[in-house]
Amino acid sequence: MKELKIVEPNIFVIFGATGDLTYRKLMPAVYNLYIQDLLPKNFSIVCIGRREFSQEDYSGNVKNSIKEFSKNTFDEEKWKEFSLIFEYLKLDFVKDDTYASLKDLINNLCNKYGCSENIMYYMAVSPEYFSVIADKLNKNGLVRKDKGIKRIIIEKPFGENLKSARELNKKITEIFTEKDIYRIDHYLGKEMIQNIMAIRFANPILESIWNHRYIDNIQITSNESLGVLSRGQYYEKSGALKDMLQNHMLQLLTLIAMEPPTSLDTESIRDEKVKVLRAIPKVDEEFVLNNIVRAQYLEDKEGTLKAYRDEENVSKDSNVETFVALKCFINNYRWTGVPFYIRTGKRLRKKITEVIIEFKNAPFVLYNGENNIQPNLLVIRIHPDERIFLNLNVKKQGNENEIIPIQMDFCQNCHSIVSAEAYEKLMYDAIRGDSTLFTRWDETEFSWKFVEKILDIWKNKDIPLYTYTSLTDGPKEMDGLLDRKNMKWWDF
Amino acid sequence: MKELKIVEPNIFVIFGATGDLTYRKLMPAVYNLYIQDLLPKNFSIVCIGRREFSQEDYSGNVKNSIKEFSKNTFDEEKWKEFSLIFEYLKLDFVKDDTYASLKDLINNLCNKYGCSENIMYYMAVSPEYFSVIADKLNKNGLVRKDKGIKRIIIEKPFGENLKSARELNKKITEIFTEKDIYRIDHYLGKEMIQNIMAIRFANPILESIWNHRYIDNIQITSNESLGVLSRGQYYEKSGALKDMLQNHMLQLLTLIAMEPPTSLDTESIRDEKVKVLRAIPKVDEEFVLNNIVRAQYLEDKEGTLKAYRDEENVSKDSNVETFVALKCFINNYRWTGVPFYIRTGKRLRKKITEVIIEFKNAPFVLYNGENNIQPNLLVIRIHPDERIFLNLNVKKQGNENEIIPIQMDFCQNCHSIVSAEAYEKLMYDAIRGDSTLFTRWDETEFSWKFVEKILDIWKNKDIPLYTYTSLTDGPKEMDGLLDRKNMKWWDF
Repeated sequence: MKELKIVEPNIFVIFGATGDLTYRKLMPAVYNLYIQDLLPKNFSIVCIGRREFSQEDYSGNVKNSIKEFSKNTFDEEKWKEFSLIFEYLKLDFVKDDTYASLKDLINNLCNKYGCSENIMYYMAVSPEYFSVIADKLNKNGLVRKDKGIKRIIIEKPFGENLKSARELNKKITEIFTEKDIYRIDHYLGKEMIQNIMAIRFANPILESIWNHRYIDNIQITSNESLGVLSRGQYYEKSGALKDMLQNHMLQLLTLIAMEPPTSLDTESIRDEKVKVLRAIPKVDEEFVLNNIVRAQYLEDKEGTLKAYRDEENVSKDSNVETFVALKCFINNYRWTGVPFYIRTGKRLRKKITEVIIEFKNAPFVLYNGENNIQPNLLVIRIHPDERIFLNLNVKKQGNENEIIPIQMDFCQNCHSIVSAEAYEKLMYDAIRGDSTLFTRWDETEFSWKFVEKILDIWKNKDIPLYTYTSLTDGPKEMDGLLDRKNMKWWDF
Repeated sequence: MKELKIVEPNIFVIFGATGDLTYRKLMPAVYNLYIQDLLPKNFSIVCIGRREFSQEDYSGNVKNSIKEFSKNTFDEEKWKEFSLIFEYLKLDFVKDDTYASLKDLINNLCNKYGCSENIMYYMAVSPEYFSVIADKLNKNGLVRKDKGIKRIIIEKPFGENLKSARELNKKITEIFTEKDIYRIDHYLGKEMIQNIMAIRFANPILESIWNHRYIDNIQITSNESLGVLSRGQYYEKSGALKDMLQNHMLQLLTLIAMEPPTSLDTESIRDEKVKVLRAIPKVDEEFVLNNIVRAQYLEDKEGTLKAYRDEENVSKDSNVETFVALKCFINNYRWTGVPFYIRTGKRLRKKITEVIIEFKNAPFVLYNGENNIQPNLLVIRIHPDERIFLNLNVKKQGNENEIIPIQMDFCQNCHSIVSAEAYEKLMYDAIRGDSTLFTRWDETEFSWKFVEKILDIWKNKDIPLYTYTSLTDGPKEMDGLLDRKNMKWWDF
């Protein structure tokens, strides 16, 4: 991919600078870019919050969070330098008249460094403020396109449903052009997810078997062992489908299933991703009945963990799903007949995010006479460890001709190097203007359409909500999605 | 593969019982089968040599060799039991009248155990005695087919050239049926070589790309770092071509290139192996000139190792090759256009035996714009460690989209288990009557024809004999066999 160099000064404005996201992710990410010398010259950060904070106090908070969340890279000297590039600004971002202070600050920074007002606005606030802030920025002359680049980074969720997403998009695109809108999905910043394209397209032996002739099915799993914690209020409006499937899981699906793009340019890649979404068959009642299992967690066997309905801020008769498993097809030449299994949930036995490609098994001759050898599997594990396994079969050592499965393993982060946090990569890309790992509107729109249709059918029809014991693998009903008797959800 | 059970008593007769092979390989192998309880009930070994030895002295020698060469499995109690199952017999095997003593001994053993004269004769003697002994056994009524099974195991070399191999074969087949003739090639007993078929046919993802559409070339290497040592006299008559290529290297080639057999039966596998040999184009002058490089070792850079011509029992103007590299094709549907590179030699930098499958590289788009990514490689290493590597490409960790090669690794013998010696496997198979890993006559005949034609052309035409410094990778002229500028002999 071509290197993008930014030589102009650059201003990074964070709305919601006293929130968890800023402390835990954004500031540590920018700090790490700083110490690697990956920021543009004269880069300034304006941290906007509604609370009263002295620069010193705010700086102290940031320091603590970097110490905690970037402990491997914290360095007192570097920190001192870094602390000079950001400023805290108190600003009530729902009020027009307060934006003057931001404008003044930006002018000062520009005068100081002779910049051309290249500004990146990061919306690390509650979703209801995304369009409000964009609007105020615009009205106060802070998005003038004649003076430098203006980018907006929008945290998830991008809308609460298709309607609100469309409204938000309409508002934002009136102010910013699509290429300057960065809809963030931090999953795409993860090292192994970025690696999926490289694994496919830099390895002709894999790409040549990456289709329905050689692949039996694909399983995409993102399980958490934690419950909803303090997020009951949010989760009651969301559920697993909106919280995970609408964004992360569909993004993973598109990367696994896309055709090779004509180039590694942002738009070429996004075009191919959207084509995958378009090839998913229409959701109807039959599809929802036969291809989706939704469920909610009960307490664990020991009774030490709460059932979902007993969690804080959760309704006692809540029908919100904390687990969803889905089987779908992609109706194109490459994937016809290959089921994609997707599952995600909370309070499951194991925290794990991985993609498993199950290849068609050996013919029932020679070594596979009784269909008792394991199929070849390629496992791309994203979390907790970043690794690739390839399960092959070999002859067992010794005098008999017994076949056993082996695992060929490449572990990306098992040695000394700790992978950069997803946010670091995404901040870096946003700063240099590479939006490949951000979501284009048509992707967002499709995924909202897809999940909204499912939600509609769930609501209007009598679709069961199953249950599962906390810290198990999920509801037993998920096995009903499997195609064959000897098939299984893989678990390594 | 079906399990073959031998329940009858069995007699194993070793001719050449005081030789190195018997002490270092055969007796340790049988001892290891004994302690694993893999020998038939009432199994007896008759150890025949021409020297005078008391049973006690001979037994002492065997004990020492087992202690030395099977040190991981030596056990004093087991040894005591094992020492009762073999007997030393002095017999001058060129004289007819001495065979009476063998006959008596076998009769005694049979009376003792009530056996039906199932006998396996092992020719661990100089090749000139193979047919002599077979003849005498026959004349003295020791190969009577009406009384039990009679097998013969023949050590290499099977003949010195095509003519002598044919004569030997004619003689042996007059006495033994083809299915009872076990022509040993100890390479085929090696764990990873047996594994080649399993790797191919139990892994549909590998078998599906195992052809000219996906494979660029295949490299088969068997290098030694030692020189000819005390074997100068033998080597002067042999050279690398006869010593290694005629048997081991061509056997490896057939296993790598064969079509899937219809079953794992001995004859089905052998049929496919022979088909590979038949598909090798005829050897002519042009082939020898353009596709073979032969060379002889000089002293090393420090001058501490002797040049071949200065070795003991080697002629000062010897033209015998100690290295040969060869490029050949297999003219069938699967392999058309794929060069097979084979090289073997002595006094090279590294002792290694391995097969490398180089797959066609990625198209010159996306990640491979400048043809600078490594092709995918599958490495099957037979020696010194038994392992499989798969070289793939991944995105380098970090914020740039750099592609780097990685090695996915499965090591068969890097952990606790030590692979059984090749001879152990081969003895086990011979005892239970499985000749899959032994060479059928038509394989032997073809390989003699092949190398003899090359030798003829070398002798009659002015074909250069290159040189190489000891402990290097071989003569630089071997690079002339490579097809493209950016191609290389892989070395891991």
